[in-house]
Amino acid sequence: MAYLNENYLKLQAGYLFPEIARRVREFCQANPKAAERLIRCGIGDVTEPLPRAAIDAMKKAVEELGVRETFHGYGPEQGYESLRSAIAKNDYRDRNIEVADDEIFVSDGSKCDCGYILDILGDQNKVAVPDPVYPVYVDTNVMAGRTGCGRKDGSYEGIVYLPCTAENNFVPDPPREHVDLVYLCFPNNPTGAVASRGQLSRWIDYAREHDALLLFDAAYEAYISDPDIPHSIFEMPGARECAIELRSFSKNGGFTGVRCGFTVMPKSVLARTENGRRLPLHPLWQRRWSTKSNSVSYPVQRGAEALYSQEGRKQVRELIEHYMGNAKLLRNAALDSGLEAFGGVNAPYIWVKTPDGLTSWQMFDRMLCELNVVITPGSGFGAQGEGYFRISAFNSRQNAEEVARRLKMLH
Amino acid sequence: MAYLNENYLKLQAGYLFPEIARRVREFCQANPKAAERLIRCGIGDVTEPLPRAAIDAMKKAVEELGVRETFHGYGPEQGYESLRSAIAKNDYRDRNIEVADDEIFVSDGSKCDCGYILDILGDQNKVAVPDPVYPVYVDTNVMAGRTGCGRKDGSYEGIVYLPCTAENNFVPDPPREHVDLVYLCFPNNPTGAVASRGQLSRWIDYAREHDALLLFDAAYEAYISDPDIPHSIFEMPGARECAIELRSFSKNGGFTGVRCGFTVMPKSVLARTENGRRLPLHPLWQRRWSTKSNSVSYPVQRGAEALYSQEGRKQVRELIEHYMGNAKLLRNAALDSGLEAFGGVNAPYIWVKTPDGLTSWQMFDRMLCELNVVITPGSGFGAQGEGYFRISAFNSRQNAEEVARRLKMLH
Repeated sequence: MAYLNENYLKLQAGYLFPEIARRVREFCQANPKAAERLIRCGIGDVTEPLPRAAIDAMKKAVEELGVRETFHGYGPEQGYESLRSAIAKNDYRDRNIEVADDEIFVSDGSKCDCGYILDILGDQNKVAVPDPVYPVYVDTNVMAGRTGCGRKDGSYEGIVYLPCTAENNFVPDPPREHVDLVYLCFPNNPTGAVASRGQLSRWIDYAREHDALLLFDAAYEAYISDPDIPHSIFEMPGARECAIELRSFSKNGGFTGVRCGFTVMPKSVLARTENGRRLPLHPLWQRRWSTKSNSVSYPVQRGAEALYSQEGRKQVRELIEHYMGNAKLLRNAALDSGLEAFGGVNAPYIWVKTPDGLTSWQMFDRMLCELNVVITPGSGFGAQGEGYFRISAFNSRQNAEEVARRLKMLH
Repeated sequence: MAYLNENYLKLQAGYLFPEIARRVREFCQANPKAAERLIRCGIGDVTEPLPRAAIDAMKKAVEELGVRETFHGYGPEQGYESLRSAIAKNDYRDRNIEVADDEIFVSDGSKCDCGYILDILGDQNKVAVPDPVYPVYVDTNVMAGRTGCGRKDGSYEGIVYLPCTAENNFVPDPPREHVDLVYLCFPNNPTGAVASRGQLSRWIDYAREHDALLLFDAAYEAYISDPDIPHSIFEMPGARECAIELRSFSKNGGFTGVRCGFTVMPKSVLARTENGRRLPLHPLWQRRWSTKSNSVSYPVQRGAEALYSQEGRKQVRELIEHYMGNAKLLRNAALDSGLEAFGGVNAPYIWVKTPDGLTSWQMFDRMLCELNVVITPGSGFGAQGEGYFRISAFNSRQNAEEVARRLKMLH
């Protein structure tokens, strides 16, 4: 009989968001009146329509597929050159960051890239993740057999957790011990924290000293308003030798349902074999895409490219301003109602300490029952998230204003 | 230093299609006159525009994303219910095949599914593949560490190869030895062979006896014209206990650049743990999608769904008839010119024996230089493909007619 991948059996039963959905469903069934005024600030999904530039480009591209002369079949497995070039130029070279077109690999989203990247890395790597963190980093490592068993608090043996607490402003310091692979995410999901140049340079130093690889998730870089905060790990000297960056069009262009993102894989990043040979990862990543994928839908790539046009950039900026307007409202409302709130300045998430010593899930239930507002329990992002909850600013202005009003009634 | 996945280093240097592209490029640079009359019958990429039903549905879906009220963000990770239901109903239940909606998993194509499916299977599996075969089956197993080293003829240690030859009509018999996992592809790429009910039932018997899992790739099922040939492995009694099916919209709806396919994962397929527990694979596959993906682009899913509408089905049928008209022309031309030709009746590929004892690559060069036609060398699909070449029927009628004319000049 075929063997299954037993690592899957180590996964904790419930993925966070299905459990939230279950509790909301049960509450709404039991309270149809309250259900009508329910507002969701849980899952980090955008709510506003796509930029018109992307819509028009996608429609045009779809129409091209309907005509023999402009039909497109299989495209280059790593993405169309025009999109790779638009990304490398606009997001990097125009900002004085050295990135070549063929160091950009177009994908169907950062969530997917989190899993794909483990394909080219060895089983032996010691992995460090921040805590709390986007659950996909950990779960994909569990599935790939890079961890031991699960513990009661949701953590896994074999992973080095980097506590992100109010004491360190939710930006972890490098560990004392050796690790090979470190996940970093700034602006952070779920805490909304950002890392300064000084903080990032300590991570680069660590990576150099330990020959470690940094996986830098910059999916929320467009939300940075502070001019001193780096948008890319490659703004830091030395990063081209030790970092891979993940980016997404989900949260800037609103592509959560359209699906497009990319990785930046510098040709200068090396990794080692068991017997000590040092080889670049770029050819392995290139091969992964050639053999396992036919890249992303042609109209989707055209839509992503249009986000870099003049109107596209303006429309993206308007979307960001909209969501950050919400974030400001929600953050201020939380502070006004006496809650300890973090984030929400350079990120669309507000990270709030639960009052009265409530657990995250107790607070979830209280927000649901008393305010009819869905938030995300912090403990779902890791053991250090216990005692916190996340409010998402992805909403209409009207809903954000209403949630702000209700937050003030928490007392 | 981070470890890399050393299995990638076992991969043979050139993936087939890049090597073809290189030779064609060099020939065209050296022979600009001949380059003008070059016709490509190499890569299996469609050439005709998409069905209008799919174009219209995708444009409508894109426009929905531009309006707040009809915007779609994250969809269900396994695909929208309406598409899963359209697939299960039209491709299976309407043909008296038992498949539930939630046994359909929508993906960005069969090539991708070939890699994804190995995620949920164990390292210990003994794998059998036909020879010749679509190279992705083997390469994804190499990358996942399920093989030993590569040999000179392109094969890998640890894999059981099932020779497909003129003697067995390119349909392999089950091996005498035990294997856990078998790849089957009918209609076949590259040979164009199809498997009868009797031949498939011998594979089901083998799978039962050995508790083996069959991965059945039916990407070309729409090309079957013979009413006695099964379109799906699930037409065979017992298959729901031992088979997973891969399907694609690439070759029926022309989605090679749009990217959509699916797997059928029956809930009744079990696999084992090291200590002998027997568990269904369906929950693992479900979890793989929840954790590692956000499914396929919303407009793409709508486009795929439209292929099942009345006009969609008619337009798909016209596309198939077009390509099969080409196949008939090409097959007959090959036979008329004295070549031994197979396939091309229930599949868009014609599998031709090289004349005069030429190797596959010698024949590739001869076709390129003498006829200015690009074909695919059979040896690129496996050791048993040596001495054969593949002609693809994916072309305009005009090109197919011209290639047929040129083939007759081979003498």
